[in-house]
Amino acid sequence: MILDKGYVHGGDIYSRPIRLDFSANVNPFGTPEAVRAAVRAAAEGLSAYPDPCCGPLREKLAAVNGVTRENVICGNGAAELIYQFAAALQPKKALLPVPSFADYESALVAAGCEPTFYPLQRENGFLLGPDILDAIGPDTDLLMLCSPNNPTGRSVPRELLLAILDRCRKTGTWLFLDECFLELVDEDKAFSLAEHLAAGDRVFLLRAFTKAYGMAGLRLGYGLCKDGALLERMSRLSQPWNVSTPAQAAGLAALSCPDWPQRARALFQAEKPWLYGRLTQLGLGVLPGDANFLFVTGVPGLYGKLLGQGVLIRDCGNYRGLQADDCRIAVRTRAENEELLRTMEEALRV
Amino acid sequence: MILDKGYVHGGDIYSRPIRLDFSANVNPFGTPEAVRAAVRAAAEGLSAYPDPCCGPLREKLAAVNGVTRENVICGNGAAELIYQFAAALQPKKALLPVPSFADYESALVAAGCEPTFYPLQRENGFLLGPDILDAIGPDTDLLMLCSPNNPTGRSVPRELLLAILDRCRKTGTWLFLDECFLELVDEDKAFSLAEHLAAGDRVFLLRAFTKAYGMAGLRLGYGLCKDGALLERMSRLSQPWNVSTPAQAAGLAALSCPDWPQRARALFQAEKPWLYGRLTQLGLGVLPGDANFLFVTGVPGLYGKLLGQGVLIRDCGNYRGLQADDCRIAVRTRAENEELLRTMEEALRV
Repeated sequence: MILDKGYVHGGDIYSRPIRLDFSANVNPFGTPEAVRAAVRAAAEGLSAYPDPCCGPLREKLAAVNGVTRENVICGNGAAELIYQFAAALQPKKALLPVPSFADYESALVAAGCEPTFYPLQRENGFLLGPDILDAIGPDTDLLMLCSPNNPTGRSVPRELLLAILDRCRKTGTWLFLDECFLELVDEDKAFSLAEHLAAGDRVFLLRAFTKAYGMAGLRLGYGLCKDGALLERMSRLSQPWNVSTPAQAAGLAALSCPDWPQRARALFQAEKPWLYGRLTQLGLGVLPGDANFLFVTGVPGLYGKLLGQGVLIRDCGNYRGLQADDCRIAVRTRAENEELLRTMEEALRV
Repeated sequence: MILDKGYVHGGDIYSRPIRLDFSANVNPFGTPEAVRAAVRAAAEGLSAYPDPCCGPLREKLAAVNGVTRENVICGNGAAELIYQFAAALQPKKALLPVPSFADYESALVAAGCEPTFYPLQRENGFLLGPDILDAIGPDTDLLMLCSPNNPTGRSVPRELLLAILDRCRKTGTWLFLDECFLELVDEDKAFSLAEHLAAGDRVFLLRAFTKAYGMAGLRLGYGLCKDGALLERMSRLSQPWNVSTPAQAAGLAALSCPDWPQRARALFQAEKPWLYGRLTQLGLGVLPGDANFLFVTGVPGLYGKLLGQGVLIRDCGNYRGLQADDCRIAVRTRAENEELLRTMEEALRV
């Protein structure tokens, strides 16, 4: 919870009137009916405590991801697991490429660790390059990656990711890899480390229902990890009932709707290049990215002008390594994207 | 979350067949329809992130409790706030009367603190006495109390609680007071410190919707505290979205149903003495307590025999300071209490 100031993320539709939210990167089709039905049904069983083991949900997640139930930990949203992971690991030296999602740094600082930043270069389109391998040494306790990265949308290339895994195995470095956006990436570009994990690997893969199934308000994320001792430490750092009954039921329901993220991917295949082209025509600098959002840069005051029209995009000026007028814009349905562009054209004309 | 073993609490209706649960201490009338309706309605708005400030909910909680919004922090159940509090305070010396709720100790250990236990005496009915005042010294960073206490049901007497507050002010000791069961205590016996707090007081009052409104599965708790710096530290230790949209909506709905805990209190006024008498007749040792449960002791194997019949009570053998055959039994409706007694009579006859 944020007391009343200091909120640095997208999705703040509460503190001002917003008619279109392009700042949060969720499935444009919203929440599947099966998930909504599961939550309505769960409303009739709120009196009992949730299953502290998340048994059926972890069973199904294990089956879907080709691991065992012992390799799965669930959280009150993926965000909670970032804090639990950092607190359980207590790394001395943590390597953090930036710009990236702000809560990696917040979670490390909360765990008493001042991260070592690894600046991604604007002139390379913020793409992670092979020089990261040289930065991983025996004294590196942890490397935190997000692929595709938030807010740039850039994926870590497949061969580089495997080389990083190899390097981390040699140096004993923990690899925390946030794959929360992966389900919304084109299938030919999506690459997960899940099937490359070996027993005892010091790798934590972070996953969320938030984006792919439009469940941001419900809070459900999970982690895959083959180091049982780390998961045990994480579980001891939190209460037994952190995953609510509606969230557990909704997760099970979502897993029976694999076509839901697929439908969004099909939309993005058409909409993303189209929106990319239109934004470029408007004179904006747009980064080619693999995620369900676009990184846009270089138009002074765009964020404020759109906000004045009730359209919220993500002002990225407060990301470490970014600057004023860097923005992140979700890709949504054609009608919404057209409304965004219309508002933007007006704003740029003024 | 608990991985797969090591769960030490009541309410585990998932790992075996249970037809009657007397192990969790929730309102026997379950969840108000207004709360269930709020959750069903929230199912239609899950795609957006929750309000990270819990704005309307904290406003209403502040008004109900006679404090300002800045004094209110919300959590994913009261249990989360115990861990956040311990992690934010990082006490060196923490005084913990036992037996009490196990997660105070777990949260302190997770925060790197080995608590100093203050044993409550069985021969005094586990009542906290004025000798606690002598145990609070200038080196005591924290005293954690629960009133009425879980699992004994004993309240800290009003005058003693005020004397403890006074003593803590003098020694600079933080007082963490868990008032989660207070709303289910007879009004003439219920005493909260809320109206006795002064600006800057190092007091944290823990409250829950879990028990009074039958919302254990949804996860919503809150804390009242007049030390803004502590609340700020707590909020920085967690993600911004720890309180789900359905939980925030349900909390607002619950606050419009003040008769719901009142109805339960009226039930307990009749049921508790009746159940107390019947259990005593059966030869059980029963402690007089102020909460919506009874502390029962001294019948070897009772827990296991009832479990064999699908009736779950709370085996308290794993509480620090208790022993095998100490049990906690919730007070429920007459029909359920009669079914418990019938099952118990059979079990004791065998």
